This record gives sequence, C-alpha cells and structure tokens, in this order.
Amino acid sequence: MDKKKVLLIGAGRSATILIDYLLKKSESIPFTLTIGELNPRLAEEKLQGHPNGTAIQFDATDAASRSRIVQEHDLVISMLPPTMHVDTARDCIRLGKNMITASYVSDAMQALHSEAEQAGVLILNEMGVDPGIDHMSAKKIIDELQAKGAWVRDFESFTGGLPAPESDDNAWHYKFFWSPRNVVVASQGAACKFLHEGTYKYIPYQRVFRRTERVNIAGYGKFEGYANRDSLKYQQAYNLHDVKTIYRGTFRRPGYCKAWDCLVQLGATDDSYVMEHSEELSNREFINSFLYYHPTDSVETKLAQQLRLDLDSSEMEKLTSLGLFNDQEKPGLKNATPAQMLQNILEKRWTPKPEDKDMLVMWHKFVYELDGAQHELHSSMVCTGENTLHSAMAKTVGLPLGIGALAMLEGRIQGKGVQIPVHKHIYGPVLAELEEYNISFSETQIR
Amino acid sequence: MDKKKVLLIGAGRSATILIDYLLKKSESIPFTLTIGELNPRLAEEKLQGHPNGTAIQFDATDAASRSRIVQEHDLVISMLPPTMHVDTARDCIRLGKNMITASYVSDAMQALHSEAEQAGVLILNEMGVDPGIDHMSAKKIIDELQAKGAWVRDFESFTGGLPAPESDDNAWHYKFFWSPRNVVVASQGAACKFLHEGTYKYIPYQRVFRRTERVNIAGYGKFEGYANRDSLKYQQAYNLHDVKTIYRGTFRRPGYCKAWDCLVQLGATDDSYVMEHSEELSNREFINSFLYYHPTDSVETKLAQQLRLDLDSSEMEKLTSLGLFNDQEKPGLKNATPAQMLQNILEKRWTPKPEDKDMLVMWHKFVYELDGAQHELHSSMVCTGENTLHSAMAKTVGLPLGIGALAMLEGRIQGKGVQIPVHKHIYGPVLAELEEYNISFSETQIR
Repeated sequence: MDKKKVLLIGAGRSATILIDYLLKKSESIPFTLTIGELNPRLAEEKLQGHPNGTAIQFDATDAASRSRIVQEHDLVISMLPPTMHVDTARDCIRLGKNMITASYVSDAMQALHSEAEQAGVLILNEMGVDPGIDHMSAKKIIDELQAKGAWVRDFESFTGGLPAPESDDNAWHYKFFWSPRNVVVASQGAACKFLHEGTYKYIPYQRVFRRTERVNIAGYGKFEGYANRDSLKYQQAYNLHDVKTIYRGTFRRPGYCKAWDCLVQLGATDDSYVMEHSEELSNREFINSFLYYHPTDSVETKLAQQLRLDLDSSEMEKLTSLGLFNDQEKPGLKNATPAQMLQNILEKRWTPKPEDKDMLVMWHKFVYELDGAQHELHSSMVCTGENTLHSAMAKTVGLPLGIGALAMLEGRIQGKGVQIPVHKHIYGPVLAELEEYNISFSETQIR
Repeated sequence: MDKKKVLLIGAGRSATILIDYLLKKSESIPFTLTIGELNPRLAEEKLQGHPNGTAIQFDATDAASRSRIVQEHDLVISMLPPTMHVDTARDCIRLGKNMITASYVSDAMQALHSEAEQAGVLILNEMGVDPGIDHMSAKKIIDELQAKGAWVRDFESFTGGLPAPESDDNAWHYKFFWSPRNVVVASQGAACKFLHEGTYKYIPYQRVFRRTERVNIAGYGKFEGYANRDSLKYQQAYNLHDVKTIYRGTFRRPGYCKAWDCLVQLGATDDSYVMEHSEELSNREFINSFLYYHPTDSVETKLAQQLRLDLDSSEMEKLTSLGLFNDQEKPGLKNATPAQMLQNILEKRWTPKPEDKDMLVMWHKFVYELDGAQHELHSSMVCTGENTLHSAMAKTVGLPLGIGALAMLEGRIQGKGVQIPVHKHIYGPVLAELEEYNISFSETQIR
C-alpha cells in the first residue's frame, strides 16, 4: 500500500514544533511529509534530512502548480497568511482533499461551506491555540455540564502570550512572542462587544484598556484581561444561546493595560494616517507631536499633565523604559503611521532574546446552575516554552494542528464542510493527545 | 440680445436666501433663473411666481437629460450633495459652461482640474461660509499683510454655527442649525493635524474635545474651539508655507466640549457598528450598554463613576438634559449605530423652533512680523439669522454663492480650472458685495 502524503504549506519559523511532531509521527504512522515553501531551502533546513520529508517550491499564487501539488497529496495543512487560505481551500474541495488551518474562518472561507459539504471535504479551521485550544477546552466543559443537565449562565475566557517568569525582565512584563503589529493595533476598529448579566455591552477603543478584569491563577500570580473585539462570535457555536454573561479577553500582567492606555490616549497607536516627515522624528519628537505646545515645559511634564499622571507613577516609569523620551534614537521610517513608529520603538525593547521563554496562559470561568444550586468552575492551562524556537506559542499552535491533521489523515476525525473544533468528535482526540505533551487543564470547583 | 440663463440645481431648504437674492438681482441684471429639482413643485414654491424664474424636473443621475439641461444654460450653481457634483462638472467642462458650488473640493473634483483648464471652464468651489467666507476673509488679510512685507507667523481660524443669544435656551447652548449627523460624527476618522510653533501636532479623536481653546469676541462673549481634522490643508493655498502655527477649528459655547467628550468616551458617538436589538432600547438602556454591570448602582451613578464626574457637575446636568437617563423614551431605530441612536435623541431636543435665530461666528487670529516687530491682529464676523428659514447659515452660504455666480456670469470673476476663492480677483468682488448685506469683518489690532 502506498504511504499517504501530507502537504504542509507556508511553514514559517513558528512551525518548528509542528514539523518535529509530524516527522516523529511518520516513524509510526505510514505517511510522508512534503513542505511547500516559496524558498524550498528554508523548508529543507527544517526537515534536517529526515527520510520521510521532502521540501518543494510552492507558490500559493500560482494556480496551476498549486492545484497540481494539492492533487498529489491526501491532506493539506495550511500555515499561509489567513487571506491566502481560500484559493488552496477551493483546490482541496475540487480535488476531494481535506484541509486544516490554525486561522480564523474568514467570510470568504465560510462562503465555501456548502460547497465543501457537498464534496464531502472537511476544511477544519481555528486549530491552533487562540483560536483553537480555547474552543476545544471550553466546549468540552460546556458539553459535560450540559450533559449533566446544567444551565451555563456565565462564561468568561482569557488567553495571553507572555514572558515566562524567568524571562519576565522589563517594566511592562511583556515581550513580542506573537506578532508585534497585532499587539500595537489590538482592539482597534469596531467597539468591543459582550453580554453581561443579559445586557449587551460595548466598549469603545478609548476605554478598552481601562475596563480590565483581574484574575489570579494559583502558582502563576495575577493577570489582567481586556476585552476582545467580539465576545458574542462563538455564542451559538458554543451552544450558549441563553447565557447571561459571555466575555472573552486577552491577558496581560497587571499594570500593562493602564500604561498602554496612555499610548492609546496620546494617539500613538493610531494606524490611520501618515505622520509628516516621520523619518526625521526622534522618539522624543514622536511623542511630542501628540502633546500641546509649551515654550518651557519638558515633554515628560507635558505628557504627565495631559494624561494626569504623576511624574513618579509606574505608568511614567513604563513609558520612560521604552525610550519614548530619548532624543537621540530615531525610528527613521518614511511615511510611517504612529502605530508603525511605536512598533519600531517597541521592537527594540520587546523582541525576546533567543533563549527567552514564553508562557501561554488560558483561563475559563463557568458559572452554572444545576439542581437548583449555582456553581462556579474555573479551568486553566499554562504552557511554558523552552526558548523562542521551541516556544509555548509554537507548541500550542503547532501541536493541535499536527494532532488534528493526523487524526484527519487516519480517519479518527471525520466530517465535511468548513468547521471549527467545537464538536466532541473533533476536540476529543485532540485534547486527549495534547495531554501527552503536558498541555492540559486543571479545574477548580469554586462553589 | 438673449438673456443669459442660470441653472440652480439641488436647491433644498437652505437655498431660500440664495433664490431670493438671484431673483431680486434678475430685475437689474438681464438673466433668468431655472431651478432644477427632482420634485419641480418644491422649486416652484420657492419661485413664488417670479417672472424671471422657472422650475423644471432635474434628475442628476439621468445623464442624457442632465447634459441637455446644462447645455441650455450659461452657468450652473450646484447645491447637490457633494458626491453628486462631479458628473455635472464633467458636463460643464464638455459643454463649456462655468459652475459654482459651496462644497469642499473632493479628490474626484480636483482630478478634473487640467481638463477644466484646457476647456477654459471655471469650476469654482468652496463658495459658502465654511468653506467659503473663511477662505476669502483670511486670504484677504494675508495678502494685505504680505503686500506690506510682513511675515505671517501664526494663523488661527474658527467658525461656529450656534443659537443666537435670544434662542440660546438649553444647557448645551447648541441647536441643530446645521446637519445633525455631521455634528454627531464630528472629528471622527483620522486624527486632527496642525502646526504649532513649527511642530506638527496630532490629536486623536479621543482627545479632540479635551484640547480646546477659549476665545472672547467683544459683544458676543466666550467661545471654545476644538480642532478641525486637517488644519494644514490650506497652508499652500493661503501662501503660508513658512508659517509657524496654523490651526483651524470649530466654535462651541464653553462647556459643550467637555460634556460632548463624555459621549465620545462612552462610545455613544460611534458610527462603526450596529447595536443588538437597537429598536428595543430605551434611552437609559442605550446609555447603560456603554457602562459596566453593577447589581444595584443606578445608570447615573455608574456613568458618573466611569467618567469620573461628580453627580452634580455641569456635565451630568447637560447629559441629563438630553433625556439620556429616561427609561420611557425610545429612539425605536432598527439596526442603528450608537451615533444614529444618539442623533435621534438629540434631534428631539436640539431641533430649532421655526422662529429660532442662529448665529454664525467666524474669528481669525494673525501674528505677523513687520519691520522687526511682532504684531497681532484679530478679525471677526458675526451674522445673526432672522428665523430658521432666513437663518444666518442660509445667508452666509447662499449670498457668497449667489454673488460669486453673478460675478462669473457677468465676467467680473474670470478664470479656469477647479478653483477655490483664495485669489483677490475672486474674493475681492464677493467680500465687497457681502458688506452690503452686513456680512463684514471687524479687525482689532492687539499689538
């Protein structure tokens, strides 16, 4: 019997753990792995000469070769940028191949649902960590509670990618283990939306980092969470149509949000316009462009006054630690938006050292009613990385993707259409195998 | 000799004074006026049987009839919505007819410049009050100062449409004499941009209504001004390339901006998303959707706490006066954005009574250096309306438009291309005639 063939496309730096997992598994499960990259040399490095792996040149925008390569495989794992999945998904549907991604289902992807369903093809998305493990771990508990006859009245969920304690060495307790740009423009666009005690609540961008929640996770300390853009998005998928409170958010360490809000209030996170002569601005001039003019007051004094901060407050300390008041340092970016300037300044401070360890923290809270009594259950998972290559992020994104892929290849996960992992037949095998890699949740019954 | 023919299109309620002006002038200058309206009956009412006026049906989207009607006239005055000018402008260029509007030059309009220039056609825009009289009155003084050899180092300019003192009877000292929607979404989009002492400054939306300036105008009291979106837009057109400070803003009465900022901070002015079940929300529920949940605190208490207001502050008084805490009143709008809900609530309070008088206030400040000394000159104009039909707004928009139109018709204003009134041969005749209608500026030499 011919070995099955798995195609992994767009495998960047964060795919190391996924590739290691797949190659290791190929020694017990009969399949071969092809890595398709624009530059196949990059893929070759990752294969380290493994006999079951091949690197090929893959250009997602070249329809003919893309389609030919998909045809030659049994399953496609796409780690392309989210907007580039759709063409490959169309090929998969036409050619009858299953596909898996770690990305949010875009509208364009969702539009392929009935086509995929008719073709009997499964396009499984949101199989990373957030989205991914968050869905699987939350839905597992919701299903269990509902099976017992409980009514889940409140659901809150937070995820954060942060430095592990041993690498937590700056005033913000934060580094860029994930996309810097996403951090800088976080929560921009439409207001945050959630349900609280049966009432729809909205938080505009200018308030998001002021309306935070504190959570303590035993052994890991305190976190603060700010609201994600749309907490209602998964209300139906989670079967929580009669929930009173549903709130999804992002974790930072305490103090981060109030200091970040200073940057928001200044306008330094704005990505909607280009600054005049941005290439000439020093960090200090960059910040001064958001402050009123004063003939003698320093930039520090003006900023503190404008934002009503004490000069010796921890917010001023955090802002100072970014070199924002430095008049020697220049981003030197042409036609840059404030967000691009700020990102450049932050990257100089927040880019992890290769040996830095990150920490992926996930926390769910369920309040439910069962047999006339109200109960509260917390569930949390903390995964710590080894270094920036074998990071918690790479692990928590790569493993569920790899586990899901092989379960699909072997037929242990079946289905059709455009799906996310909110059904037991999908999350069950994945969560079970994740435990083997120490990605597991501990539950605490509060009442 | 045949009489010349003027076509006025899209003449709404605010065109009454313009039409009266044109009909009156038609008794001494040989021309006839055609008013083109989708519903010609509306236009007929405005003509009141004047022998020099005709009403016709005009559909700006019907290319064939539009072009035929333009062909039959010598000059076109367009009061269509700004986006609809361009098709008519193309007809004018092709058919060799001059055109005048009170609207900002859109990118699409600007793109017609060289075409109009080659055709020898003048498309004169921004001929209302703001934009319009603001350009003319400021540029006149700038030209005079520069002719004397002065260097204009600072320029500030504010315009506001407000209730006249006798109609100034609510806590906000504001009514909707201009477009309610424009007021609700004012300053949204890109950050405000200006120059202050040689430094480019940017104010994000969430700070615009906190960084205001106070101005006193003798005989009319105090005003506060917030920044317009792009103060640099006219730097070149005003020949102020070496100016140190350039700031253009909008006037309100003191206290308005701080209270309006409360609505901004809540997110109640947001126009970017639709609220869930908006048709069911009472005013009180609308406001509560922007506040945190609390089992016992009132909406008033939560709002005051969230915005750090005292319950007896003038901001709370202003918000209360809008009925925002009323649980009996409902906007009743389906799929409404917060901005649409708020506009509905405001319109119930801020729509002027027919007899209400408005007041158009314009103020310029020039700091200049001449013969080694620094000088400061203020120039201001206040125009008061008689009622909502003969409003200051209708007067200050309609008269410069009408005066400009007839000056073009008679060849007293000449030119070609897409223009705005920043040249003496344009603003000269218009400002002179405006004085006959008591629209005139008083200058105060401060030092």
